[in-house]
Amino acid sequence: MDLILLSIGTEILKGRIANTNAQHMAARLFASGFGVREILSIGDTEEAIISSLEGCFAKAQVVIATGGLGPTRDDITKTAACRYFGKKLIFDEELFKKLELFFFSLGYKSFPELSRNQALVPEGATVLPNPRGTASGILFEEQGRLLFLLPGVPGEMKGLLDEQVLPLLLKRFRAGEPETAIVRTIGLGESVIAERIEKGLSEEELALLGYYPHGGQVDIVISGPPGGQSPSGGAIGRVADHVAAVLEGYVFSRDERSLLEIIGSILSREGKKLAVAESCTGGLLAKRITDIPGSSAWFDSGVVSYSNRSKAAYLGVPPELIEKCGAVSEEVAGAMAEGMRQACPADYALGITGIAGPTGGTPEKPAGTVYIALSDETGTRSQKYKFNGDREQVRTRSVIKAVELLWRKLKEDYPLVLP
Amino acid sequence: MDLILLSIGTEILKGRIANTNAQHMAARLFASGFGVREILSIGDTEEAIISSLEGCFAKAQVVIATGGLGPTRDDITKTAACRYFGKKLIFDEELFKKLELFFFSLGYKSFPELSRNQALVPEGATVLPNPRGTASGILFEEQGRLLFLLPGVPGEMKGLLDEQVLPLLLKRFRAGEPETAIVRTIGLGESVIAERIEKGLSEEELALLGYYPHGGQVDIVISGPPGGQSPSGGAIGRVADHVAAVLEGYVFSRDERSLLEIIGSILSREGKKLAVAESCTGGLLAKRITDIPGSSAWFDSGVVSYSNRSKAAYLGVPPELIEKCGAVSEEVAGAMAEGMRQACPADYALGITGIAGPTGGTPEKPAGTVYIALSDETGTRSQKYKFNGDREQVRTRSVIKAVELLWRKLKEDYPLVLP
Repeated sequence: MDLILLSIGTEILKGRIANTNAQHMAARLFASGFGVREILSIGDTEEAIISSLEGCFAKAQVVIATGGLGPTRDDITKTAACRYFGKKLIFDEELFKKLELFFFSLGYKSFPELSRNQALVPEGATVLPNPRGTASGILFEEQGRLLFLLPGVPGEMKGLLDEQVLPLLLKRFRAGEPETAIVRTIGLGESVIAERIEKGLSEEELALLGYYPHGGQVDIVISGPPGGQSPSGGAIGRVADHVAAVLEGYVFSRDERSLLEIIGSILSREGKKLAVAESCTGGLLAKRITDIPGSSAWFDSGVVSYSNRSKAAYLGVPPELIEKCGAVSEEVAGAMAEGMRQACPADYALGITGIAGPTGGTPEKPAGTVYIALSDETGTRSQKYKFNGDREQVRTRSVIKAVELLWRKLKEDYPLVLP
Repeated sequence: MDLILLSIGTEILKGRIANTNAQHMAARLFASGFGVREILSIGDTEEAIISSLEGCFAKAQVVIATGGLGPTRDDITKTAACRYFGKKLIFDEELFKKLELFFFSLGYKSFPELSRNQALVPEGATVLPNPRGTASGILFEEQGRLLFLLPGVPGEMKGLLDEQVLPLLLKRFRAGEPETAIVRTIGLGESVIAERIEKGLSEEELALLGYYPHGGQVDIVISGPPGGQSPSGGAIGRVADHVAAVLEGYVFSRDERSLLEIIGSILSREGKKLAVAESCTGGLLAKRITDIPGSSAWFDSGVVSYSNRSKAAYLGVPPELIEKCGAVSEEVAGAMAEGMRQACPADYALGITGIAGPTGGTPEKPAGTVYIALSDETGTRSQKYKFNGDREQVRTRSVIKAVELLWRKLKEDYPLVLP
């Protein structure tokens, strides 16, 4: 079964947003054993939608379209799809009543006139209920071709995909989950990793490898082609073991868990607490930690000390130390981590101070200079780093390095927890 | 002139990465007056590349392809494009010498055998020099069709786009910057906004409107069709003024500045300081604030108090209050904001406590229940909200609501700063 994702709306063509909806759908589909053949972004004109549907259905049996289901005038996906299939739009009384209730629950006194079209349904099509918003999903089924229309609002799309689209596709096309393995690493560059891995592998084994560097980490994914046959003889497991072996010391996970999830599972198992004191990363580290559901079991608190005063008030960093060494220094990073650990008290604390840029750099400490410290009951170690890139990259790389330092310490302290 | 972006590589189809390259290119092209007709992502097989080139050139005169120019075995874009145009690959001695120098500058002792193919150039094509890497850009020009091949590495693609592709396109097609206007709003839903705006506009004026809802905000963009003529008679400015007028009270910016940038410019002009105390948002608010370069001028500090102990220790929230009202309550949100403001001291402080989910909810306070408080020298106001969505959405919506509350307060306190 061939499948194409069709993203409708000018905001992607104008570069205002990245197509993260397509990324999410492709990843979910791939994990369920469905390969995506193409991803196509087009504008919101009837001509573009209709000619794209013609082009897509010439190549694929299933098209999942997103966007253009809202109430405003540039939302024309339903109308265009109806024209393509030669169908009419019919007002659905039952759906309208549900929408009324939804609007009332949001505090509306009356039904917004413009949103009446949200109750229009193409004749013969299936409504896919959307409990998160007013734009229902729609499924057209014509001569073996399946067209799903989903709203472009990410939360609503994700819900409909998981609750309606994937179950239906799995039932219809009985895909099996593809055999796939992942080895997640931190601390080595992509080319060094490839060199180490590829030595001694056969052409067939090399064809299974994919490298996905992202923000200081590299995931190595071992899988057959999407939609294709799994390679025989346990090749995927064998290559994955080889990859993990040659990258020993840099591998933190052999499943989808992130580095912070791994850290969280160690800390909560050991009954230990983490705290963080951030300056240049401004809350990004705390945010990444608390992204993880249940992190309250092992994360105590964080302080974002942008001012020197707050470094003294919350973290007990002596003002004289800041005056002597500068707020961006090995000494202050260490004092931040240690002060944070003792104030909570926590078992482990990270301290980060640096110059994220673009302004604030000096010849001795240019933008990208960052000090990271880790404190536990045995002491506090602080180190200088120089990260390349813009403000966002420097902040992200600082956070990843801090997390890596903590992971290496936890590996030392609890050696049995190694993946 | 019609233009299509073609992204080559399976990592996008498998959903491992979002197509941020295409977003960057589309935004840069749009800013230079070139509309992108379609963005297409395909896999790295010769068949897919050739049939996509056929499809693209049936609709567009210019195709900019990225990806598949590296030295490894899955890099086949050059070969496939040669087959499409009926050209041969020729070894370019001069380019090879340049590549040798590049590798030596990286510390290589000898030229890596695998990279020799980087010196292969399609006959008759133009090499677009890439000072940032080993994969040169390539320009095919055949019977009025232009095909650019760019490497997929973002930094290299961006350099080639700005230094080679855009100057060439501008010279060839003489596009002007498109006339465009933006009105950014917070606090109203898309359908209500559209209802207010569209009353009384002509069909021509309506065609200029685009709505871009994102995370609780709606941007209204007024512009001519991509690649088309600007509408005459100052229609864009007139419609933008109309939009701003009917949405008064919800408009925070008429340029690209974000709400927090607006807030920052007010606070720094008035010499005021902000501090934030976060529980369920876990540092996301502080992170968003410190995303802004120069925010240290107006942001003092933040506390992420995940534990009750830290709410007492850092924010002075009485443990009895937490016991009596619960950590997630109007009272505790207020005490967090007020404690934070006084501890810094800061002029304004926000406090957020809630249940981001998916766990931790109760029948009285289900996941999505969030209390937000704003404290200044005149007092502290705390309010309950119920946000829909998953953990990420609840956290994002909480932060946006908190920022909106602060903005409304600042508008009251410094009325002349209104956009």
